[in-house]
Amino acid sequence: MAKLDIGKKIQSENDLVAAENRRRFADAGVLVMNLISSPGSGKTTLLEATIDRLSDRAKILVIEGDVSTQRDIERVRARGAGGVQINTGGGCHLSAKMVAGVLDDLDLDSADIVFIENVGNLICPATYDLGEDVRVGILATTEGDDKPMKYPAIFHEARLAIVNKIDLLPHLAYDVEKVTREVGVLNPDCEILTLSALRGDGMDAWIAWIEDRLSRKKE
Amino acid sequence: MAKLDIGKKIQSENDLVAAENRRRFADAGVLVMNLISSPGSGKTTLLEATIDRLSDRAKILVIEGDVSTQRDIERVRARGAGGVQINTGGGCHLSAKMVAGVLDDLDLDSADIVFIENVGNLICPATYDLGEDVRVGILATTEGDDKPMKYPAIFHEARLAIVNKIDLLPHLAYDVEKVTREVGVLNPDCEILTLSALRGDGMDAWIAWIEDRLSRKKE
Repeated sequence: MAKLDIGKKIQSENDLVAAENRRRFADAGVLVMNLISSPGSGKTTLLEATIDRLSDRAKILVIEGDVSTQRDIERVRARGAGGVQINTGGGCHLSAKMVAGVLDDLDLDSADIVFIENVGNLICPATYDLGEDVRVGILATTEGDDKPMKYPAIFHEARLAIVNKIDLLPHLAYDVEKVTREVGVLNPDCEILTLSALRGDGMDAWIAWIEDRLSRKKE
Repeated sequence: MAKLDIGKKIQSENDLVAAENRRRFADAGVLVMNLISSPGSGKTTLLEATIDRLSDRAKILVIEGDVSTQRDIERVRARGAGGVQINTGGGCHLSAKMVAGVLDDLDLDSADIVFIENVGNLICPATYDLGEDVRVGILATTEGDDKPMKYPAIFHEARLAIVNKIDLLPHLAYDVEKVTREVGVLNPDCEILTLSALRGDGMDAWIAWIEDRLSRKKE
C-alpha cells in the first residue's frame, strides 16, 4: 500500500507540472509532440528527416531526453534545429519537471513545433504526461511484430503510432497488418503511419499529418 | 532526499531477496543467466536457438518477464523447455521478489541452467539483482551502433554483451568495432559475442561460452 501511495503522489505532482507546461506551450502557440519508443527505433533519424522536410515552413525546437551523452542533440542541431539535451543520469523517462527545467532555455514564442524525444524506453515514459499536445508511439519493423500487446500502455495513450524502418521489410518476417490490428484493439482512436525515416518512404504522409495538426492548432 | 531514501530502501530489500534466490540456485547447482535488452533485440529468439542446440546436454528452465501476454513462454515451451511466465502488469523490470515468487513452480534440482528473460527495457532491469550468476546485455545491430554510451548501466554490470542480428549487417550502417570499443571502455571485463540467433552465425561460440560457465559451476 505504501508503495502505491508514493506512486500516486509522484504521478499527481507530475500532472500538476505537466498542466503548467501545457499552459506555457499554449501561450506560445506551439504544437508539442512527445515521441516514445524503444532504444534504436529511429526517433532521432525521424527528427532529422522531419527537420529536413519541414524547417522551411515551420520553426522547430527539440528537447532531447537520454540517460547520458549529447549525441542526439548534436544530430538535430546539425540539421539546423534549436533545442536542448536533458540527461537523466540513469532515469528511465522524462518527467514534466525535467521538461519545465529547460523551457527557459528555449525561445518558445518564435517556434511552431517542439518535439520532445523521450528516453529510449517503451514502458516508463508512457505514464508521464509532459504537457504535450500529442503522444506518438514509434515501433521499428526490426523489433518484431508482437510488440503492441506486449507493451500496451503507450498505445492506450498515443494519438499516432508510427511503424518505422519499412525499408528493411524485405529482409524480415514482419506482419504490418498484425501490428495495425493489435494497435487498433488497444486504442481504436490511434492512427497509424508506416514509413522509413532513413529512405523517405511514407515521410510525405507524416509531414502532412504534422501540418494538419499545426493548422488545427492555429485555428 | 525523501525520494532517494525510498529508492535505497527498495534496493536493499531487493538485494536481500536476491541473496536468498542466489542461495536457492546454488543449493540446486544451477547456472542462472539474466538476459537484459531493449524490446525486440531477440532475447526470445536467442533462447529458442539455445534450447535447440543445448537441450540434449543440459536441462533448461526459463523464467519469462513481460509487462503482459504469455507469448514468450509459449515460444520457449514449444521448443521443449520448461518454465514460467511472470507478467509485471506495467512494471518495467523483474525484481528479486517476483523471481522468488515463482521458484516453487520450477523443479530447480533437476535443472542445469535457468535463463531469466527480463522485461524488454535497457535501463531499469540493470539495477535489480535477481540472484543470477551472470548478467548478459543484448544489443541488436538494427538498434544502431551508438547504444553502449547512451545506456551505460547495463554494460557496467554485464559479464557478457551480445550483438545480435548480424545477418542484417549488409543492409545497415552499423560499426561493430565502435560498439565493441565502447563496451570495453564501460567495462573492460565484459566479454563480447556477435551472432545471429535467427540464422545461426556465432551460435557455436555462445553455446561454448555457456558450457564453459556450466563446467566451472560444477567444479
